[in-house]
Amino acid sequence: MALLVQKFGGTSVGTIERIEAVADKVISYKDQGNSMVIVVSAMSGETNRLVELAQQIDPRARGRELDVLLTTGEQVTIALLAMALEKRGYPARSYTGGQVKITTDSAHNKARIKSIDHERITSDLDNGRIVVVAGFQGVDEYDNITTLGRGGSDTTGVALAAALKADECQIFTDVDGVYTTDPRVEPEARRLETITFEEMLEMASLGSKVLQIRAVEFAQKYEVPLRVLSSFGEGEGTLITTEYDADKTMEQALISGIAFNRDEAQLTINGVSDTPGVAYRILGPISEANIEVDMILQNVSADGTTDFTFTVHRNDFDTALASLESTAKELNARVVSGNNRIVKISIVGVGMRSHAGIASRMFEILAKEGINILMISTSEIKISVVVDEKYLELGVRALHEGFELTKLS
Amino acid sequence: MALLVQKFGGTSVGTIERIEAVADKVISYKDQGNSMVIVVSAMSGETNRLVELAQQIDPRARGRELDVLLTTGEQVTIALLAMALEKRGYPARSYTGGQVKITTDSAHNKARIKSIDHERITSDLDNGRIVVVAGFQGVDEYDNITTLGRGGSDTTGVALAAALKADECQIFTDVDGVYTTDPRVEPEARRLETITFEEMLEMASLGSKVLQIRAVEFAQKYEVPLRVLSSFGEGEGTLITTEYDADKTMEQALISGIAFNRDEAQLTINGVSDTPGVAYRILGPISEANIEVDMILQNVSADGTTDFTFTVHRNDFDTALASLESTAKELNARVVSGNNRIVKISIVGVGMRSHAGIASRMFEILAKEGINILMISTSEIKISVVVDEKYLELGVRALHEGFELTKLS
Repeated sequence: MALLVQKFGGTSVGTIERIEAVADKVISYKDQGNSMVIVVSAMSGETNRLVELAQQIDPRARGRELDVLLTTGEQVTIALLAMALEKRGYPARSYTGGQVKITTDSAHNKARIKSIDHERITSDLDNGRIVVVAGFQGVDEYDNITTLGRGGSDTTGVALAAALKADECQIFTDVDGVYTTDPRVEPEARRLETITFEEMLEMASLGSKVLQIRAVEFAQKYEVPLRVLSSFGEGEGTLITTEYDADKTMEQALISGIAFNRDEAQLTINGVSDTPGVAYRILGPISEANIEVDMILQNVSADGTTDFTFTVHRNDFDTALASLESTAKELNARVVSGNNRIVKISIVGVGMRSHAGIASRMFEILAKEGINILMISTSEIKISVVVDEKYLELGVRALHEGFELTKLS
Repeated sequence: MALLVQKFGGTSVGTIERIEAVADKVISYKDQGNSMVIVVSAMSGETNRLVELAQQIDPRARGRELDVLLTTGEQVTIALLAMALEKRGYPARSYTGGQVKITTDSAHNKARIKSIDHERITSDLDNGRIVVVAGFQGVDEYDNITTLGRGGSDTTGVALAAALKADECQIFTDVDGVYTTDPRVEPEARRLETITFEEMLEMASLGSKVLQIRAVEFAQKYEVPLRVLSSFGEGEGTLITTEYDADKTMEQALISGIAFNRDEAQLTINGVSDTPGVAYRILGPISEANIEVDMILQNVSADGTTDFTFTVHRNDFDTALASLESTAKELNARVVSGNNRIVKISIVGVGMRSHAGIASRMFEILAKEGINILMISTSEIKISVVVDEKYLELGVRALHEGFELTKLS
């Protein structure tokens, strides 16, 4: 008998029929003797409908009143799911973020959770009730309604699990777990039974968009076991934990998965003087233009000048290039160049920490396929390469096979 | 400079365009130097949409979770109206019932307001903000969301006006005031500048459904000046007060208006023994069948037996008749009869308190038109007659002219 926090997203509760199916699924866990807390998003399409209403009044609608508007989306879902549970004879109670209460800071539209008072929920659980909580929302210290930013229901689930010291936080999605890579690119991709938080963070930020990064960070920080499962099918999903079990580590693969990102664009400025403050003068204007930078590379300088490269989302390429050309003039740089036909492929795994040779194995596999590497960047548990976009599928499949990800069970 | 509470119903905020129009109207009052508190209903159609969602899950949906669901309707409106005000450069703050906070009892779906904490609103008004409050909702002492029952936004407006000691509570509707009678029956019907609460209560319950009875009772109890105005047009509307001004009373009409009810049905049981408890034995089963009774008449008995008559809504006629026939057998009553082709016409006015002869004048007017009176019932400020339904228009027009309602200004 465990205390489970389960989160169902907008697609999982997108129609009355699906809400009824979620009720059946929740009850199947309840009948096994578990205490159940359910976090739900707005029905799919509802948040967009509300945003469109707001934008008819003010195209730039934001702030306090937008939060008052958007939070009605989840409030509708909690009521309907609680009704569906009650109809099946299972006592249930719904709560908005403010009722729980989930206290956040006052940053409307992108608030962060500060604390959770779980007294009411605990009392309901003690009385055998199923508790249904609106995701994505809270109140600030003055009782103003806030939202955690779009898609923040995962964070609500993890935060509640942490506050309640739940045995597991289960995130139900439209995929049945985390895969070694995207099955649409490599049909041999395999579902992972477990993955570490660090690996998950690298996978998520690199394009395996199963979970929100913030929710994973939150779960890691508070050591909440997180599980990704399918809303519509059966199966155990993928468990995300702090570290692999000792037993499993023995036969653990060196890398867990292959992530990739199709939407990269690279910008390079050559021959800038290698003096303090140059990196700031290059990236400052980019940051001020609200352009997010992914990779940043600067190699050791030879002749007193250096080459500086960074990547941005492909949509931001033109803006970033214009900014960089302007900066280049100020810095008397030699050349500015860019390429928006590139992709990033990364191998991720805690196993590579203690094993030399992973990088060279990666480069060997790519070389055998004739894939030219444009950039290389590494972190403790990840190696990323940038290649021409035409090599994406070939590269991912070759690495998936070369690191024997398919064979592992 | 006054403190005004204005209430706009679902039709008045039914589209984004209308919400924008409400914002303009509110601002026109604000620009005159008034402090403004606005109460709004759900956009028209929204409550029905939510009820239908609930009924797809449970056709008999009610109770706590239905309130969680339905209150989202007004929450959407308050956010949108606050945005529209802010867009126009007028600082605004929206509040749900729970945020205000409006505390009710725990009778879900039909809660009653117990108290209002107006501290936040007063603070906002002091800071020059326009306050927008969700009608129809509150929270009980345990912070569970409650609703005042359908259409309860009028009550929210009046209760807020009472708590804030507002100078006036203005109810904006799709009519531009209270009329001497229904203009669709009598084109000469005239808008009243003022009417007393007592008259308004008699007019409302008799079919001039401009305001909810509960809101009028509330306003009377707390002596809140209430004004009915048009959302879409201009004009002063009708002010509902405790008593007419002394000046106006001098030339006050004896009656203020003519109300009527098309949907009546009459049931009579003849020859029941005139003993204690008979009325209860007749009406008890009617009440248990959830049938509302309007008029009840029992005349003095002659031969130790009596005749007992009551009226119900025409839709309940068949059920009530079956119940009455069953009761009649138990009571050994002689005859049960009924008529569902009747209407009730009433003249209403505080002036008739001090004037004899109003009743006889009424009967004289009807007699001149050859209208046969089937039943008569009176209260302090009202005389009602029941007549065959074919005489409705003729009767109303004859009385309107006979009591010179058209001529008054």
